[in-house]
Amino acid sequence: MTIPADFDFSRYDRIRPIQWTGDALQLLDQRKLPFVVENVLCSSSDEVAEAITALTVRGAPAIGIAAAWGVVLAARSVQAADGAQALVALQPAIDRLNASRPTAVNLAWALARMSAALGRAGADWLDVVEAEAAAIAREDLAANHAMGALGADLIAAGSGVLTHCNTGSLATAGFGTALGVIRAGVATGRIGKVYAGETRPWLQGARLTVWELSQDGIDPTLIADSAAAHLMKTGAVQWVIVGADRICANGDTANKIGTYQLAIAARHHGVKFMVVAPSSTVDMSTAHGDEIDIEERDPGELYGVGGVRTVAEGIAAWNPVFDVVPAGLIDAIVTERGVISAPDAAAMAAAFASA
Amino acid sequence: MTIPADFDFSRYDRIRPIQWTGDALQLLDQRKLPFVVENVLCSSSDEVAEAITALTVRGAPAIGIAAAWGVVLAARSVQAADGAQALVALQPAIDRLNASRPTAVNLAWALARMSAALGRAGADWLDVVEAEAAAIAREDLAANHAMGALGADLIAAGSGVLTHCNTGSLATAGFGTALGVIRAGVATGRIGKVYAGETRPWLQGARLTVWELSQDGIDPTLIADSAAAHLMKTGAVQWVIVGADRICANGDTANKIGTYQLAIAARHHGVKFMVVAPSSTVDMSTAHGDEIDIEERDPGELYGVGGVRTVAEGIAAWNPVFDVVPAGLIDAIVTERGVISAPDAAAMAAAFASA
Repeated sequence: MTIPADFDFSRYDRIRPIQWTGDALQLLDQRKLPFVVENVLCSSSDEVAEAITALTVRGAPAIGIAAAWGVVLAARSVQAADGAQALVALQPAIDRLNASRPTAVNLAWALARMSAALGRAGADWLDVVEAEAAAIAREDLAANHAMGALGADLIAAGSGVLTHCNTGSLATAGFGTALGVIRAGVATGRIGKVYAGETRPWLQGARLTVWELSQDGIDPTLIADSAAAHLMKTGAVQWVIVGADRICANGDTANKIGTYQLAIAARHHGVKFMVVAPSSTVDMSTAHGDEIDIEERDPGELYGVGGVRTVAEGIAAWNPVFDVVPAGLIDAIVTERGVISAPDAAAMAAAFASA
Repeated sequence: MTIPADFDFSRYDRIRPIQWTGDALQLLDQRKLPFVVENVLCSSSDEVAEAITALTVRGAPAIGIAAAWGVVLAARSVQAADGAQALVALQPAIDRLNASRPTAVNLAWALARMSAALGRAGADWLDVVEAEAAAIAREDLAANHAMGALGADLIAAGSGVLTHCNTGSLATAGFGTALGVIRAGVATGRIGKVYAGETRPWLQGARLTVWELSQDGIDPTLIADSAAAHLMKTGAVQWVIVGADRICANGDTANKIGTYQLAIAARHHGVKFMVVAPSSTVDMSTAHGDEIDIEERDPGELYGVGGVRTVAEGIAAWNPVFDVVPAGLIDAIVTERGVISAPDAAAMAAAFASA
């Protein structure tokens, strides 16, 4: 049974990390979750950029939306006859926002969209820029609802699923990408059990995903990242459902470190593997995964947790943040445009020739 | 080139977690490592049992050795004409020691060996029991040196290796099992680079293994458990080398949670997989891995690290401590008796028919 387009997901969709107050941007401070639920108010573009850098807001779609509102805040102190003139004046602020995180594709995408809207705008450019930011946020939420229904439709009733990192309301305008599919699957009875990996070293799964789901009345079960294969062997999960940081022209997908290992274990056990991300994550200019530079972060992230050091001084560590799942290990890529089963270069080209 | 039987490994073998002082048992307190290097002195059998329960000493072989010395301590307050009489008097102490940890195979094995020696002993039973404990420790160290040479001989010069959990000097009388092979491999130039997984939730890799290796002048590189497959894809490792908690009659091997996932990823990448354990770990009465009960521990172990809570209240967690690697994913099982390549029931029966 297909999920109707107007299915009401509101019961499973209560968290909003980014809210425009009319004259400021309110961000749910993700550094303090899950123990302190506190909002931060940004009144300037620079404050938004700082919030992105400081991880107050995180998740590729959420970062893009926050940056779009950052442009709106910057626009308020600019005098210009039309959008093109305003764009010149706003360029330094846009550049600062663009530099606030190194690798989030959606950040550059959202800022390019804001710039394009400005370039087209006339004397009402201030209204246009605010409407564009609102549209980016609104469309992200709509895309997540669409992906939720599309992805959940792939799942047999009563299935167990495993997810990784945080791809939820906290990482988007709301509902989430992979977590959106999980919300939709729970809402429609397709998913009976949800497992979430801790996601070392940042513990986004342990800190954010299980909190976020429990806020919406979904009871997740946390596991150590290394327990995933053993979990699959027990038969408890039928799908692994993850987000994406970049999807290449052949379907190879970069995502949080550990995703590749899950994909290998899933294939080994006959567990299906689903990638869920908005079409803005698809990068048709990158032919395949080997062309992606994998960011390696500070080894210090492996030296402890929450300020508690667990590793002796003077020890080396290797801390890649992402890895790449080859398309051959992916059963379905879900974007708001539809489902690509068994993705390869031909299927991707057919779906995203214009991207 | 085969490593000579009398190869001097002493430069790479400095840590001794268990030392008999002549009238007490000195244990390196593994709960405080790596930041505090402190010994605990046990003067009674009950103190040894408490130290095993409290994880002051850990690692299956090390627990067995500590328990054997616990019997010696108990024996000192017993009056008996011969060993058989002493064994009756010592039974309560032996039972307490045997109950100090639930699943360590070597604990029961070492205590059975102590009881058998007592049963055979005459009036000199007190000397016999002390000699037997010393023999258990001495033979464990010799077995580790033998396994180190046998395992390292399988490795091509300049290889990279990945290990999991702690199977080192800290877990044995010295030198270690999987870490013994790594020590021998580094000492003889076979191993150029050593990676160690953190080993959530207890972080034995992060807390113990990297510390232990660095004490012996070997520079390990720590990785998140979930980065292992990505590491293999880079070509940096040629062998995964792990210990074992139980080896079944068909070669299926139970070990720390996460080992199974490593074995699947290794096979996927053509990386070899080696299990290293003394023959006392082989359990020919367990036909295969499905017969092994996998211990599940307190979910609370996933709720934080070192007293710092990272997970919201009210979240469920699933915390299996071990998993099983099927024999088909193992390239070599190394015991002190020799190497079993591509283990299966026939090869195991040929090697351990009498076990």
